[in-house]
Amino acid sequence: MQQFVQPSAAHTTPMANAIRVLTMDAVEKANSGHPGLPMGMADAVSVLYERFVSVDPSMPGWPDRDRVVYSAGHGSMLVYAIHHLLGFEDMTRAELENFRQLGSRTAGHPEYGHADGIETTTGPLGQGIANAVGMALAERLEAARFPDLVDHFTYVVCGDGCLMEGISHEAIDIAGHLKLGKLIVLWDDNRITIDGPTSLSTSTDQCARFEASGWHVANVDGHDREAVAAAIEAAREDERPSMIACRTVIGFGAPTMAGSHKVHGAPLGAEEIAATRAALGWTAGPFEVPQEARRPWLAVAERGRTARAAWEARLAASSRAGTFRTARAAPDAARLRTAIAGYKRTLSADAPKLATRVASQKALEVVNRTLPNMLGGSADLTGSNNTRTTGMTSVAPGDASGDYVHYGIREHAMAAMMNGIALHGGFVPYGGTFLCFADYSRPAIRLSALMGLPVVHVMTHDSIGLGEDGPTHQPVEHLAALRAIPNLMVFRPADAVETAEAWEIAVLSPRTPSVIALSRQGLPTVRTRHTDDNRTARGAYVLRSPDRRDVTLIATGSEVEIALAAADRLAEEGIGAAVVSAPCLELFRRQDGDYRAAVLGEAPRVAVEAAVELGWERWTGDAGAFVGMSGFGASGPAADLYEHFGITPAAVAEAARAVIKGTN
Amino acid sequence: MQQFVQPSAAHTTPMANAIRVLTMDAVEKANSGHPGLPMGMADAVSVLYERFVSVDPSMPGWPDRDRVVYSAGHGSMLVYAIHHLLGFEDMTRAELENFRQLGSRTAGHPEYGHADGIETTTGPLGQGIANAVGMALAERLEAARFPDLVDHFTYVVCGDGCLMEGISHEAIDIAGHLKLGKLIVLWDDNRITIDGPTSLSTSTDQCARFEASGWHVANVDGHDREAVAAAIEAAREDERPSMIACRTVIGFGAPTMAGSHKVHGAPLGAEEIAATRAALGWTAGPFEVPQEARRPWLAVAERGRTARAAWEARLAASSRAGTFRTARAAPDAARLRTAIAGYKRTLSADAPKLATRVASQKALEVVNRTLPNMLGGSADLTGSNNTRTTGMTSVAPGDASGDYVHYGIREHAMAAMMNGIALHGGFVPYGGTFLCFADYSRPAIRLSALMGLPVVHVMTHDSIGLGEDGPTHQPVEHLAALRAIPNLMVFRPADAVETAEAWEIAVLSPRTPSVIALSRQGLPTVRTRHTDDNRTARGAYVLRSPDRRDVTLIATGSEVEIALAAADRLAEEGIGAAVVSAPCLELFRRQDGDYRAAVLGEAPRVAVEAAVELGWERWTGDAGAFVGMSGFGASGPAADLYEHFGITPAAVAEAARAVIKGTN
Repeated sequence: MQQFVQPSAAHTTPMANAIRVLTMDAVEKANSGHPGLPMGMADAVSVLYERFVSVDPSMPGWPDRDRVVYSAGHGSMLVYAIHHLLGFEDMTRAELENFRQLGSRTAGHPEYGHADGIETTTGPLGQGIANAVGMALAERLEAARFPDLVDHFTYVVCGDGCLMEGISHEAIDIAGHLKLGKLIVLWDDNRITIDGPTSLSTSTDQCARFEASGWHVANVDGHDREAVAAAIEAAREDERPSMIACRTVIGFGAPTMAGSHKVHGAPLGAEEIAATRAALGWTAGPFEVPQEARRPWLAVAERGRTARAAWEARLAASSRAGTFRTARAAPDAARLRTAIAGYKRTLSADAPKLATRVASQKALEVVNRTLPNMLGGSADLTGSNNTRTTGMTSVAPGDASGDYVHYGIREHAMAAMMNGIALHGGFVPYGGTFLCFADYSRPAIRLSALMGLPVVHVMTHDSIGLGEDGPTHQPVEHLAALRAIPNLMVFRPADAVETAEAWEIAVLSPRTPSVIALSRQGLPTVRTRHTDDNRTARGAYVLRSPDRRDVTLIATGSEVEIALAAADRLAEEGIGAAVVSAPCLELFRRQDGDYRAAVLGEAPRVAVEAAVELGWERWTGDAGAFVGMSGFGASGPAADLYEHFGITPAAVAEAARAVIKGTN
Repeated sequence: MQQFVQPSAAHTTPMANAIRVLTMDAVEKANSGHPGLPMGMADAVSVLYERFVSVDPSMPGWPDRDRVVYSAGHGSMLVYAIHHLLGFEDMTRAELENFRQLGSRTAGHPEYGHADGIETTTGPLGQGIANAVGMALAERLEAARFPDLVDHFTYVVCGDGCLMEGISHEAIDIAGHLKLGKLIVLWDDNRITIDGPTSLSTSTDQCARFEASGWHVANVDGHDREAVAAAIEAAREDERPSMIACRTVIGFGAPTMAGSHKVHGAPLGAEEIAATRAALGWTAGPFEVPQEARRPWLAVAERGRTARAAWEARLAASSRAGTFRTARAAPDAARLRTAIAGYKRTLSADAPKLATRVASQKALEVVNRTLPNMLGGSADLTGSNNTRTTGMTSVAPGDASGDYVHYGIREHAMAAMMNGIALHGGFVPYGGTFLCFADYSRPAIRLSALMGLPVVHVMTHDSIGLGEDGPTHQPVEHLAALRAIPNLMVFRPADAVETAEAWEIAVLSPRTPSVIALSRQGLPTVRTRHTDDNRTARGAYVLRSPDRRDVTLIATGSEVEIALAAADRLAEEGIGAAVVSAPCLELFRRQDGDYRAAVLGEAPRVAVEAAVELGWERWTGDAGAFVGMSGFGASGPAADLYEHFGITPAAVAEAARAVIKGTN
């Protein structure tokens, strides 16, 4: 490793010191925040912008801009200070003064959508790197389709925490494999974490680690602007993704606190701030930026404006401008609805049983044929998740013409990369794994919900119905746990019709991610009467209506068949059982009260789902009952398990009789 | 990388072929399962046992046995075949014939507790490696305390999937850092995953990657017994953890299917099985093992029996036998209960506000002083999680005398390592992170619940009450999501008293892991009257009882204070509000109906929790209401957020009035 020379303030520039001072001032005023990283990385990041980054503050959404991802989201003042200095209109001095206050754009961690130019929400460590891998992949894919219109870099600023998190391995591994050469990671190698020196918990040679995964690496003094610039220049030329280890001093510039974990996440205090100002030769008052510091930042913005204008001219002259715009626009809803309705008409009520994972593939054939920019993939379960449709070709190292990603056994990175792909634009990503492994990707699913991204998680093998693989692979709590996440739609379709409807809704929801939970085992068609309208969009609906409703059976997915069989039994006894299919409880909850009341009815209710009860109490009510799982599953053939755990027509009928009598 | 020579059947041994044939037969009979890995790794693993592994089938729980962890759990027939061949009494031929059937010991993936000698439940990839790192760490810690009694190896069999999963990075990083030299990983380098060749999704040089994290590595032909043995020998001598890349052919021995992903997870079929038998020169019938194959396995068992007997003689002669046994026994419940009751007596009702995370540290001071074998740690949030108590010393590379682990920014590995530590025995592990990052460790938390391990997850910053860090750090759905996991206790104590009680229960529950959710912000003491008995053990209880109960307010953690203030307001209006504190809904659910009815009362109910409603409907009922979060949080001071999201005494009082009137 290159010898690290302790830098002095003499090396820094007004451009970098503006970041330092604005950071100190904002954290001090908020009495909360993380000054260490912005102060430490100010030199490296300011030279990155000064020489390389192409963004236009007057058009933050310019598609061909460079992406800068602040994976170490606690250093949010780095983003806010830079955007303020670049002249982003919404990043005013008042916003900096309101850092971390309710309603400000300057949240504790950078929040996508809160202010222009924030490329992704970060804070949970490691996510940003994986988002960036997704963005860099999307850039390569889009560039393969529109070489004259797409050619930009994805830069990442990350810290030690990002590189300790497991997701970083998944992201680095696949980025190296796919040779995402326009991805450049700047690692803030400050050797400090919250507990103290990194030597408390790690000895990994990060450069060797990245090299092992096919990355180009460099080691530089992170306060030496020319060294950083040369490393970035070399990284841009290399066909591999690049990692530049920037050896820095955390909180650089603070005379007594720099280099200590104490400067990581707490205000410096008035005295240290004054001393830092003196050391940096900074005479301006709080939140003030002298012209000499602002000027070079505005030059960056001006360069970006020029580049953007040139790009717009290219777009205007391009014969493929329309195609490019279509690929980046919302999917053609009318066209997809027509296609799905047509497909639904072909589904026969007396078709043989079909697993909804297979039905999902059939629906996807329609979706992928209809929409131009679907990007499929699976975490190494392609044949099980049924995510690959006719004519799809694999994305491969050096060949970005494909539309199917082999994400490898990396559920977490897949979900986070899909977030990055959606953020980048140009593609609608979906990816498959087993529902049980939603747990592995959960931190990234949460962020897709928080950001409101149109990502579709295909999750097959959705209950004990998967059979012999046993409890480690059988989700019982996952539906409840996913339903708990705000702004996430959890679909559990009962048959091929509902599966197609779920896909239609998922793909046409621009601000809400979806999980589509699908069965491994075969299921009959339960929606025997065709409707052009999407009944799944109501969340729940009456599938079978008896003359007199003595009880209502509510079920999802594979248990709708069981509820129908239970209703048959009850009918033989003269008991009228309505059957409600509830493929998406989140959508049902959004319906008006009259609709909900009509579906739920006045009679007592029994819910059936091969999962835990948590959350069902809302729908069954005080007089109701639940038939499902109360603990983990077991290994055995699916039919044996349903019998063993008592999720059968007989058990549902028995529960129905009990709620009717009030003896449950 | 060493040149790989395609081996022929001539290299294999009856010892290894017995594994192959039993695997084929069991998978065929079950018509389900994964023959590829057991057949591919049969040579390497059989030589591992033949020359090195020290286990005694007649005493599977012998503390100083070598641990063998099958991280690639889908290769479960490897375990079952080996245990059958070693003569484990409960692994009969009938069990092999009932592979993957309901009620058998031979579940689809190895399940801890289902059969003797299964060291951990595996299947979700990457978990086993991290469990093994925990076991190897526990071994080093225990050996430092009892050098004459503890000295064993931890072996791991893993596949490509384990090494692609992010958790593997976390585990490898910390194992290398801590120089866990008695950890030896055998990687089944078969270059095949479910989707096809590994070249579809990875290019990582695994050996270089492990070396970058301070491991000793070797590359061998996995079918060359002598090469494997020599590598294991060298690994045992090296002071670093070791990874041996065993280049193998998946499904080795099957004439037409070996080397293809088709042999990974499906039966071979009668024809291929017959051809394999012929190729291996195996004439015995299904599930039959000839003496020449059984004999060397029984010799391994005999060697283990001898080693175990010698160890028992050492234990009998050791002056520290009693201490050793105490450390491995269940914690002294009576002693801890007395200590906690004594501590509770010192808590004053009029003490200043105290965050429950700080109260947790105070309770831990008592626990750690009272019990000899607590092992603390945090995922780099020691000062925030308050997990380190007086006198604790850090575990460091080459120094295992400490009792506090700096797990690094590795929530997932921390949780999985704690599972391994608990499985190894000798220590009660607890580890801290933020509640929001329960998502990162969730797959391992699930396994702790499935296995029933006494692991304590300390999770601080448990709501919007953490303030400025914003929605990425504010759990809103995590309490519900954790409550959905079977056999997990989720504690959310309201004050220092309940916090101490939660710790007492958590540490004394041998078969149930716990999450203790703790506040960042200060909270008053709400349990103003001392009781020696542990009221938290009832899950919920009446904290304040009015003369006439017009409404019941149920709250947890930091919202109990709000419920009490609401009750005060209501009292001023002549409305009698009972306040129920519900620190653990799982325990409350287990109470008898009379107790639950008495606590919940006849009056309408309002629940208050700064989290999503999901699951609360069970306790509020049709006539009730909920005051909490309906979406993600925001960045701002905690008090502003509670006001903004309407979780206030005024809002609770308003909801109470509404439920009393029936207008909610």
